[in-house]
Amino acid sequence: MTSVRVQPTTDGPGPRERMVQSALILMGERGIEATSFSQVIEHSGAPRGSIYHHFPGGKAQLVEEATRYAGDAVAMLLADAVKKADDPVAAVDTIVEFWRTVMYDSDFAAGCPVIAATLEGDHSPAARAAAKEVFERWQELYAEMLQRAGVPEDRARSLGSIAISAVEGAVILSRAEGSNAPLERVSDELHRLFHDAIDDAAT
Amino acid sequence: MTSVRVQPTTDGPGPRERMVQSALILMGERGIEATSFSQVIEHSGAPRGSIYHHFPGGKAQLVEEATRYAGDAVAMLLADAVKKADDPVAAVDTIVEFWRTVMYDSDFAAGCPVIAATLEGDHSPAARAAAKEVFERWQELYAEMLQRAGVPEDRARSLGSIAISAVEGAVILSRAEGSNAPLERVSDELHRLFHDAIDDAAT
Repeated sequence: MTSVRVQPTTDGPGPRERMVQSALILMGERGIEATSFSQVIEHSGAPRGSIYHHFPGGKAQLVEEATRYAGDAVAMLLADAVKKADDPVAAVDTIVEFWRTVMYDSDFAAGCPVIAATLEGDHSPAARAAAKEVFERWQELYAEMLQRAGVPEDRARSLGSIAISAVEGAVILSRAEGSNAPLERVSDELHRLFHDAIDDAAT
Repeated sequence: MTSVRVQPTTDGPGPRERMVQSALILMGERGIEATSFSQVIEHSGAPRGSIYHHFPGGKAQLVEEATRYAGDAVAMLLADAVKKADDPVAAVDTIVEFWRTVMYDSDFAAGCPVIAATLEGDHSPAARAAAKEVFERWQELYAEMLQRAGVPEDRARSLGSIAISAVEGAVILSRAEGSNAPLERVSDELHRLFHDAIDDAAT
C-alpha cells in the first residue's frame, strides 16, 4: 500500500500537527482500530515519546483531533474557493480536485478519516461526535453558498447533502475500482445539479 | 449497539446462508477486522464448529461470500423493482426504502458490507475484488434501466455512479447524524436528476 506522506519542512507544521496529519491519513487508509501510536510516530517522523506528551488523552484524543482537523482542512478549502469566486460549482470542483489528487497520489489507498470516525465510532465516541459535526458543517457550507446564489433554503440543504454524500461515496467506489472514473462521473452530475438549481433560482 | 438480527425460521435459509447473512451484517456494523467467527456463530445461531465445515477457506472465504451475497441482494431488489415497473426512479425508491428501514431498525448502527470490504481490502484482497465487481454491477444496473428509458449511454453511466455513490455516502452521513435526514435529502435530489434526464431524453 502506498501511503500519502506528510513532508516535514523547516517552516512546516510542528511535531504535534504532523502527528495529527499522520493520524488522519492513516485512519483514512486503514481505519481507526488498525492505526497505532507507533505507526503515527513512524509516519510523522515525530520523536518517540512526544506523542504521550502531546496527547495525554491517548489515542481517543488523537483520533478526535484528527477528525476535527480533517473537517477544518476541507472547510478551509471551501472558504478559499469562496474567496476566489463565490460560486458553488467552483467549490465542488475544489473538493473533487482535492480527492482526485489524493486518490491518484496514494495509488487509490487513501480514504476519508471522517468516514473512519463514523464507522468505528462505537469504540471512539468522541471521534464519532466530531464526525457528526464535521459532516453537518460541510453540508452547511455548501448550503450557505447556494443560498447566496439565490437557491431557496430547503433546496440548498438537499444539494449540500448530495454534494457531500456523493463525493464521499465516489471516493469509496474509486478506491474499490482503482480508478477515479466514479469520482469524475459524480462530478459531472453535481455540476449539472448545481447549475440547474442556480439557473432556476435566477428565473 | 443494536444489531439487526437474522431471524431463523423453519423454512428460512439454512445455517450456511445464515452465517453469510450474519457476516455481512456484522461487517457493515463493525468492519471486517472487528468481526470474528465466534461473533458470526453467535449472531447466526448456527452450530459451533459448522462454520469451519462450511467455510474451509476461513474468514477470507466468508467475507468474500458475504460481499457477493450483499451484491446479489441489492441486485435482486433492483430486479424486483424493474419487474413491477421498469422505472429508474422507482428503483431509487426501492434502494432508499431498504436503507431507510435498515438504518432505523438498527438504531443507525448498520453499514454497507461492500464499503467495509473496500476499506479493509488490504487484508482481504478477495473481498475487495468482490467489492469492485459489486459496485460496478450496481452502477451498471441503473445505467441499463436509464438507457431503456431513453437516456444516452454516457449520461446513464454518470447517473448510475451518482445513484450508488450518493446513497452509499448518505448512509454514512445518516449513521454519523443518527438520523435518516441526509438519506431523505439525497433521495429528493436523485429523483430530480433522474426525472430531468428521462424528460430530456423524451423531448
